[in-house]
Amino acid sequence: MSQAERVLDPVAVPLSGERFSVLYRIAGDEATARARGEALVVEQTVEFPPDLLPPGDIPEQIVGRIERFRAGDDGVFQAEVSYAVETTSLELTQLLNVVFGNSSLLPGIRVERLSLSPALLAAFRGPRFGRQGLRDYLQVPDRPILSTAIKPMGLSAPALAELVYQFALGGIDIIKDDHGLSDQPFAPFGERVARCAEAVARANAQTGFHCVYMPNVTGSSPGLHDRAHEAKLMGAGALIISPGLAGLDAMRALADDDALALPLMSHPAFLGGFVTAPDNGIAHGVLLGQIMRLAGADASVFPNFGGRFSFTVEDCRAIAAASAAPLGALAPIFPTPGGGMSIDSVPEMHAVYGREVIYLIGGNLYRHDGDLAARARQFRALVEGLADA
Amino acid sequence: MSQAERVLDPVAVPLSGERFSVLYRIAGDEATARARGEALVVEQTVEFPPDLLPPGDIPEQIVGRIERFRAGDDGVFQAEVSYAVETTSLELTQLLNVVFGNSSLLPGIRVERLSLSPALLAAFRGPRFGRQGLRDYLQVPDRPILSTAIKPMGLSAPALAELVYQFALGGIDIIKDDHGLSDQPFAPFGERVARCAEAVARANAQTGFHCVYMPNVTGSSPGLHDRAHEAKLMGAGALIISPGLAGLDAMRALADDDALALPLMSHPAFLGGFVTAPDNGIAHGVLLGQIMRLAGADASVFPNFGGRFSFTVEDCRAIAAASAAPLGALAPIFPTPGGGMSIDSVPEMHAVYGREVIYLIGGNLYRHDGDLAARARQFRALVEGLADA
Repeated sequence: MSQAERVLDPVAVPLSGERFSVLYRIAGDEATARARGEALVVEQTVEFPPDLLPPGDIPEQIVGRIERFRAGDDGVFQAEVSYAVETTSLELTQLLNVVFGNSSLLPGIRVERLSLSPALLAAFRGPRFGRQGLRDYLQVPDRPILSTAIKPMGLSAPALAELVYQFALGGIDIIKDDHGLSDQPFAPFGERVARCAEAVARANAQTGFHCVYMPNVTGSSPGLHDRAHEAKLMGAGALIISPGLAGLDAMRALADDDALALPLMSHPAFLGGFVTAPDNGIAHGVLLGQIMRLAGADASVFPNFGGRFSFTVEDCRAIAAASAAPLGALAPIFPTPGGGMSIDSVPEMHAVYGREVIYLIGGNLYRHDGDLAARARQFRALVEGLADA
Repeated sequence: MSQAERVLDPVAVPLSGERFSVLYRIAGDEATARARGEALVVEQTVEFPPDLLPPGDIPEQIVGRIERFRAGDDGVFQAEVSYAVETTSLELTQLLNVVFGNSSLLPGIRVERLSLSPALLAAFRGPRFGRQGLRDYLQVPDRPILSTAIKPMGLSAPALAELVYQFALGGIDIIKDDHGLSDQPFAPFGERVARCAEAVARANAQTGFHCVYMPNVTGSSPGLHDRAHEAKLMGAGALIISPGLAGLDAMRALADDDALALPLMSHPAFLGGFVTAPDNGIAHGVLLGQIMRLAGADASVFPNFGGRFSFTVEDCRAIAAASAAPLGALAPIFPTPGGGMSIDSVPEMHAVYGREVIYLIGGNLYRHDGDLAARARQFRALVEGLADA
């Protein structure tokens, strides 16, 4: 036996045979697309010259397998690739690596669908609350949930808390930090959270509502974990995090933290690189629906169609669909369209999203005649009216 | 005073006046590009209707400021935008958010240059070792540093350790885990690191070399931190991490960890979304040079030109340049081109990168006639010869 054969022995443990699959969209003519597909299955797993692989389980099971290859609708090709579940270590980071680690760097490859297998689905708890859990938590049994953001950046903590108070008086269910509020000197994290949590509690005591204040805990590691727990202690009712900045797995860790146990909303900041180019990246529904859900978000913010971000209505429908599509035992989550929405947009959004949605209206709510709470009540009445219709 | 005025009071603390800047490439005709630029400076900061902002510091200082707007070389436009340093909280996550959080989701916006200011530069320690520190650590005073990866995924820990031993006998300075090795059942993290660290020490004892084994610690939070420390205890000489998967700030936290104090190499897995589309994302040099350095990498892996990833030679030169360009007190780091490179590529790479480089040759080193150590010696002799020439 040559040294090469001795060194490159086969896998030492039996594989289960369980596989999950990814549907890749591949640009190029058929020959190019086929070659890209064949390179892809090596790239995502062994990254090794195929002719040098030892015979047996490695080429037969560890290397990705093209299960189907076909022409797509729009002159591109689709390759359904399966991978041995063991390649993922049953970890989110390594799952994402197998799905789109190196291939994210290859031109003309896009993840269109992710079909997880039982062992993978069992490895992820996903959202702690999900749709029903969040409805119960907020005591909003069936209408769309109302959300807004406190801003602009630059306001002091007392000024932000006053905004929270007014929005809570007006009955906005979730009053979140603008995602750019972190720990700036004009509204430091601790002071902001303490004052805003107090403000929402004071309003709830007056109204009998169950509004929550949702601070942004995105921040530097390990401060992220500390901020989340500090926020809970100070009375935050939920948390928002930008996993593109803090790491998808950092969000998963918060969701899985039994000592924290707060609803989580994900924000898509710094994730646009994946969705803005049609030939590359990850499909909107997979990234902002399925993966956010897998990573523990109870609600996933994304730019609504018709706003300033150029997501199409189909992109948004795909996210909403992925938020509730069967995914093992994982609970469905709330699509949370936002980004330049106004109260006037609500009827059009209602037609697309139905009642299983969180409406996130930010800046437009600030267009009022001196009474923010009245403007919030107007938003709430509109949504209640549509839900009853 | 109306309620709106009362609530939207000006910033409560004086701003320093210090600003940093970002050069954005904006696609579109001039009117479109100007409009996108004007929307951008709001989007990245206050996310608020400009006409509703209270007068004073918020519109004058907190909102981004277009310092210059000009036509670029290729029919697109460039906007140099400055931001108040306070908007970043002096945190990596929030800095990235201001630079490219929401704007990553806007079509036709690309980050071309990032010009940090003194307070920001002082807030980041950056690479713990840097070029000179890593040269001292590895005892490689002036030639290019040699690196390879153990693979394919699927091998047992003893088989991988045997590869480490052979590469170390042959004098490869850094022998890293393939970035897809995490904690799979066929080579669990703990067993793999223990065996590989032992193998490199055994080879060094024979050769007198100072080769290091560099395990991949990318993994789920908080396991990442634990894996890094576990690896150090078991004798790992350096660590590789994929910040696209684990979070850029997770790498920064490892770099800043005085109890760890090991050299870090970054891998670009799952970051391709930022660099594959010309009209979107972040320029190669900024992401894979400057930002990796800011986030604490001592060496940044990227796909070399001429390989399978379609980075151009200009892209690679930009990364190498950003690895050493002035950046406050932050040490320069090593560009680490890899991805389908062969020993035959070395002279061409030498012409581009000179001596301040880590050559990462993976699969091609496995093309040998039964003696992996001899193949490694061939790689080393070639590089030593070029360095002497």
